[in-house]
Amino acid sequence: MLSDTVEVKVASHVNEHRLWDRLMQLAKIGATESGGVSRFALSEEESLARRLLIEWALELELEISTDDISNLYFRLNGRNKQTAPVMSGSHIDSQPNGGKFDGTFGVVAALEVLQAIRESGTQPARSIDVVVWLNEEGSRFSPGMMGSDVFVGRRSLDDCLTVKDSKGVSVAEALETTHSEFHSLPRRSFGGAVCHYVEAHIEQGPLLDTAKIPVGVVTGIQGSRRFRIRVIGEQAHAGTEPMENRKDALFTAVDVIQEIRSQLMNRFPDLKLTMGLFEMLPNAPSVVPSSVYFSIDIRHPKDSTLAESQRIIDEICHSNQNKCEIEVNQIAVSKSLEFPNRIRKRITRCAEILNIGSMPIYSMAGHDARQMHYHCPSGMIFVPCYKGISHSDKEACESSDLFMGTQVLAASLIDMANQQLK
Amino acid sequence: MLSDTVEVKVASHVNEHRLWDRLMQLAKIGATESGGVSRFALSEEESLARRLLIEWALELELEISTDDISNLYFRLNGRNKQTAPVMSGSHIDSQPNGGKFDGTFGVVAALEVLQAIRESGTQPARSIDVVVWLNEEGSRFSPGMMGSDVFVGRRSLDDCLTVKDSKGVSVAEALETTHSEFHSLPRRSFGGAVCHYVEAHIEQGPLLDTAKIPVGVVTGIQGSRRFRIRVIGEQAHAGTEPMENRKDALFTAVDVIQEIRSQLMNRFPDLKLTMGLFEMLPNAPSVVPSSVYFSIDIRHPKDSTLAESQRIIDEICHSNQNKCEIEVNQIAVSKSLEFPNRIRKRITRCAEILNIGSMPIYSMAGHDARQMHYHCPSGMIFVPCYKGISHSDKEACESSDLFMGTQVLAASLIDMANQQLK
Repeated sequence: MLSDTVEVKVASHVNEHRLWDRLMQLAKIGATESGGVSRFALSEEESLARRLLIEWALELELEISTDDISNLYFRLNGRNKQTAPVMSGSHIDSQPNGGKFDGTFGVVAALEVLQAIRESGTQPARSIDVVVWLNEEGSRFSPGMMGSDVFVGRRSLDDCLTVKDSKGVSVAEALETTHSEFHSLPRRSFGGAVCHYVEAHIEQGPLLDTAKIPVGVVTGIQGSRRFRIRVIGEQAHAGTEPMENRKDALFTAVDVIQEIRSQLMNRFPDLKLTMGLFEMLPNAPSVVPSSVYFSIDIRHPKDSTLAESQRIIDEICHSNQNKCEIEVNQIAVSKSLEFPNRIRKRITRCAEILNIGSMPIYSMAGHDARQMHYHCPSGMIFVPCYKGISHSDKEACESSDLFMGTQVLAASLIDMANQQLK
Repeated sequence: MLSDTVEVKVASHVNEHRLWDRLMQLAKIGATESGGVSRFALSEEESLARRLLIEWALELELEISTDDISNLYFRLNGRNKQTAPVMSGSHIDSQPNGGKFDGTFGVVAALEVLQAIRESGTQPARSIDVVVWLNEEGSRFSPGMMGSDVFVGRRSLDDCLTVKDSKGVSVAEALETTHSEFHSLPRRSFGGAVCHYVEAHIEQGPLLDTAKIPVGVVTGIQGSRRFRIRVIGEQAHAGTEPMENRKDALFTAVDVIQEIRSQLMNRFPDLKLTMGLFEMLPNAPSVVPSSVYFSIDIRHPKDSTLAESQRIIDEICHSNQNKCEIEVNQIAVSKSLEFPNRIRKRITRCAEILNIGSMPIYSMAGHDARQMHYHCPSGMIFVPCYKGISHSDKEACESSDLFMGTQVLAASLIDMANQQLK
């Protein structure tokens, strides 16, 4: 088949050394002493990473643009500029002391595909956009997925602008800095027709690594719900206040955490339960704590399990207040989703024609592809990461796996960009 | 008795309005919106409070000095400068959003006594020093009681200098600022003979307030032990890391806290148990916590109870590590103590001759008088505080109670300063 030839040709121009080298260059920006990366949305480090990506895009003579929430786009024009483009990308922000590959791989791989297309001498029928989504991680401004959420219209720009980081800086204020630094970039509007979206990402689970298979064709993403719990007690003297009079916010929080953990884990052993944020006031050793603020993150493939878990959390927080008050705020709900079978089939076929091993895989983590799934037919390509460790400075990948994943991405994107217009 | 006459005369010069006015002036420095005070050791606010105290001392023509850890001294010279002085004072640092009277009252009351002595036209046989101890609270640099600990030689200056606050600033660095700001003050050496030390303080427990008795003659101070616990787990992805593989530092910390609380409270219902400090890393909602650092503060009148509690804490931390590691560090031990009966008798007698109601009272909180107890015969005078609430912006006192407490302090100090030389 002629199309197979183009796919193989483009994939053959993917350059393993260049791909790895670019990932290592980006890993230096916000590098931590322990080998991880701390690069928060709209930070100085993220700006430096944007600059580097823009340099590479300029060398490739791509059309560079941004939008009102500072998503970044690099376009390789197709023969028919009027048709909806194919899109691929991910994010460059990280968790605190997170890994070098989470997000960054999807951006660098998509850019590598555009370069491979250029070097192969072909021009696709449709344009292809590389996108760098703002604030996927939500580690500075919570919740994350801001760029893709606003792009697809699931969340309003105004709503995002008011979110503040732990130092009280709002997204609006931080955006002003980023926008003024990149003021020369044209701004595109949110949304617009997209033909297909394919995101490459490290697996963040040990399945591919264990199976020694370089490519995972993602079947879907498990749902999640996120909460913030505030326990309000009363500040008092650690030496004098009688125990029976105390409204100790920590002790009440600990009771609630134990009860939630015990009930949810007994009932749903395959639920993921994380309380990753915990802040206490006034946080002084000689003072009975007056308030505790903590996060609950639950994830599961079944939405009914998440709904029932939420009911249990609400019930426990309501009935274990002791002498304190407890407020429960739900801050995010993401339903479980399944990517369209036809997208998964095309990616699988591309791996086959390249003789690269692949398997279906389910994503336990959320990604921008979740947001794009509600906008256009979408899919994801996973590559192995060492023992599945991610959101950690121990995150590690093999260059050869990233290379093969990028080849499959290259074949998939050129295939989709050349498909007959509907 | 002639001596009674002098005591009554000096006490009659204590000025209620001036005392209250000075307390309110100090309360403005570091005032919080909710009516409390946040004034940390060696902070800008503490410097401003020092300046104000020094202004008042200059008006009174007292001899002002400091020392290498920036304790502040105001001396009223006695007729016989060669004999050991009587000393009184407290501290001006506070807990975060703490109260207006904790510490400050003891300093302002002692200064008021020197002014009353001046205005009465008498000169005591011994000199009287007002002392402002550095960092009693330990809310910025932990543990507290630094100034008095170093003064009496229970802790070395070098040891204190290396202590850092939560932003990484060391005592040595912060001291440099304070010393350079007050460089013109002469430095005295630590220790030296002290005849007696008497500290006035709010009660921080509801006994005097409930009994409607304005003065408590403190019999002793309950012992305390302080620990820092570090739980070391492993950072991981909240969505992907299987629950059974996690080394979740929060969940292990919560297990340990529940077990400690349950065992200690069952065994010793009258123990005071507080975990006032709690910090988590990396503290991001989508990341399994890699470490938790928290404080344990236990207090009880019986040293044997504290020792047994410590054994239980060690045992629980050792046997509940799960997949994490737990480090236990003891950072302070204070034995229960009883103030000398003869000091208590003299204070009681002074209250009697002034017709001010008094009762014996036991201190549940630690004070600098604990440190001084190991240096010279010491005692304390308590005044009521509303419902015993302290280490809180709700801390409140009646002006008339503070006035009567200061009168008893005045009579006691002049009595001690006039006593026959041993």
